[in-house]
Amino acid sequence: MKPYALILAGGSGTRFWPLSRDKRPKQLQKLLGGTSLMCQAIQRLQGLIPTENIFILTNQIQEEEVRLQAPGIPADNIITEPIRRDTAPAIALGIGLIKAANPNAVMMVIPSDQLIRDEQAFRLLMQDALETASVEDALITVGIKPSWPCPSYGYIERGSIISTNTAHPCHEVIQFREKPDVATATTYLERGNFCWNAGMFVWSIPTVCRQLEKHCPELANFVETIAEANNPQATITEHFHTLTPISIDFALMEKADKVLNFEASFDWDDVGSWISVSNYLESVQNNQTNTDITVEQATGNIVFSQSGEKHIALLGVENLIIVETSDAILIADKSKADDIKKIVSQLPEELR
Amino acid sequence: MKPYALILAGGSGTRFWPLSRDKRPKQLQKLLGGTSLMCQAIQRLQGLIPTENIFILTNQIQEEEVRLQAPGIPADNIITEPIRRDTAPAIALGIGLIKAANPNAVMMVIPSDQLIRDEQAFRLLMQDALETASVEDALITVGIKPSWPCPSYGYIERGSIISTNTAHPCHEVIQFREKPDVATATTYLERGNFCWNAGMFVWSIPTVCRQLEKHCPELANFVETIAEANNPQATITEHFHTLTPISIDFALMEKADKVLNFEASFDWDDVGSWISVSNYLESVQNNQTNTDITVEQATGNIVFSQSGEKHIALLGVENLIIVETSDAILIADKSKADDIKKIVSQLPEELR
Repeated sequence: MKPYALILAGGSGTRFWPLSRDKRPKQLQKLLGGTSLMCQAIQRLQGLIPTENIFILTNQIQEEEVRLQAPGIPADNIITEPIRRDTAPAIALGIGLIKAANPNAVMMVIPSDQLIRDEQAFRLLMQDALETASVEDALITVGIKPSWPCPSYGYIERGSIISTNTAHPCHEVIQFREKPDVATATTYLERGNFCWNAGMFVWSIPTVCRQLEKHCPELANFVETIAEANNPQATITEHFHTLTPISIDFALMEKADKVLNFEASFDWDDVGSWISVSNYLESVQNNQTNTDITVEQATGNIVFSQSGEKHIALLGVENLIIVETSDAILIADKSKADDIKKIVSQLPEELR
Repeated sequence: MKPYALILAGGSGTRFWPLSRDKRPKQLQKLLGGTSLMCQAIQRLQGLIPTENIFILTNQIQEEEVRLQAPGIPADNIITEPIRRDTAPAIALGIGLIKAANPNAVMMVIPSDQLIRDEQAFRLLMQDALETASVEDALITVGIKPSWPCPSYGYIERGSIISTNTAHPCHEVIQFREKPDVATATTYLERGNFCWNAGMFVWSIPTVCRQLEKHCPELANFVETIAEANNPQATITEHFHTLTPISIDFALMEKADKVLNFEASFDWDDVGSWISVSNYLESVQNNQTNTDITVEQATGNIVFSQSGEKHIALLGVENLIIVETSDAILIADKSKADDIKKIVSQLPEELR
């Protein structure tokens, strides 16, 4: 039985302006690695999920670009949310579509905006997760070994290893912990049995439907409505806006009867800001760049050029973020990276 | 008798990189005012000097662009120096060419890279200077009333007003003072009879030739050689490189028997750096710009875009110089403006 995948590609955000735009946010930009992060997410499934079993969830404003960037995915597998409703309704939508195709399927949910370079390690681990989901009546999560007490991720507290036939160890999950403060996160790291929640899930349709029925009947009903619809997109348009906006962690994962966890054996980065991007850029006299630069008495700057067509010279400047696209240039102090949204809110629509 | 003008347009410099390039330095760029400073210098002579009496001195690398920007000037009036030899040989070259055209002419020498916006006031003053030069056996200078004790200009110490028939008062010159330190310049301003040397000169051919014969026979000989040449450009190529490099101030003005001075009644700026340029740009939330910018927690920055095609956003940055051209972007701290040459020295030839 061939597994399915649901790629969540409807995210937006301003932290990567001027590269990121309403129609082409972070996951649709060539930020790192030569293709967009979404293209990389699709490529990463090769050999693991048949192309015809990959579904992509996006929104109306990004749909055109998603279709352009996913030419191998069947047109009917690219679905738009009519309105933003957080991850639980979005994932329920995907579950409904996959249930319509195969009510006994095993499926995974993956984000489209993470950087994972070791494709082979990803496939091996997810293969184990899929096999486990096909035999265990459990929801399966993927954990990232935390490298620092990051306060902006969710954490998963893990218990003992359960017996499976897979190469990767599989832990039971004790509980989910939402974004902690740094002090709390520090104790998590000290205790050693916590990992970051990567937002990847693996389960069988029967298992996830039973859990939805038990813990979120509104979403269970929605899954059935979609699964039985003759015209899924029309049904989505009719019903999706009625759903309560809630994350999959709150709606389902924290309440579910049995949750398991595989620890990622692959590299992982959610590429949350220009500062994250800089970790993957070339170093030129203590500046990080993806393009040709000339440096004089300048350190700690991040230089990102979409086209690489202009030579960029830095003189006597420190700790700046400099981003050039075809129609805009951002020059920001690194310490103000979180305020890029204040720039975007001032811009005319054609520059957003 | 129609007067002549010699425009010195062979200057180069790196202080305006990336706008200024070897082939198109400051005076050939649209820095301020919609046309290049050289075009403005030509335009400023309209009604004062017949176009066919205007000579432009440039160099081989800039010649093509000068000819493009000066379509009204007779082709033979645009002359190239084969090698850089400072202002005295360059001006002697122009004197020779004008003497060949009319040995009794009155002429002016003007730079091509200054900003003077009040054309009418310029013409009225220079008309008085030309008339005075036609009757007085003197070399005539133009002085700028100093606004601060600038240490990078030459100063002219003026004596009493002499009797002329002109509307503008004409002073005798006591002496020239080369670039003083700030303390000395401060005493000049306190004494009140000092002005900046604007690098503009007016004289008759017979007077300047007599003074050259007396004080710099090498240049007097060169003037005669040019004036008598059948093929001036070939003669220049043959002889120019043999001349001693020296400024006109040192070679002639400081030694001349009689020097007079008119004080400029027009605005004047030698536009020495991006910081000078910023005085003429639009102010947007305490930043100076010639293009569309969005500002958030940013002050004191200078933003100059050659094309204005990209929207520039500033976030949390202060006192930067940001210059964008078709092939380069400079981001410099204002305090390092004098070090732009260190950037240029690192660049490949196609970017200089």
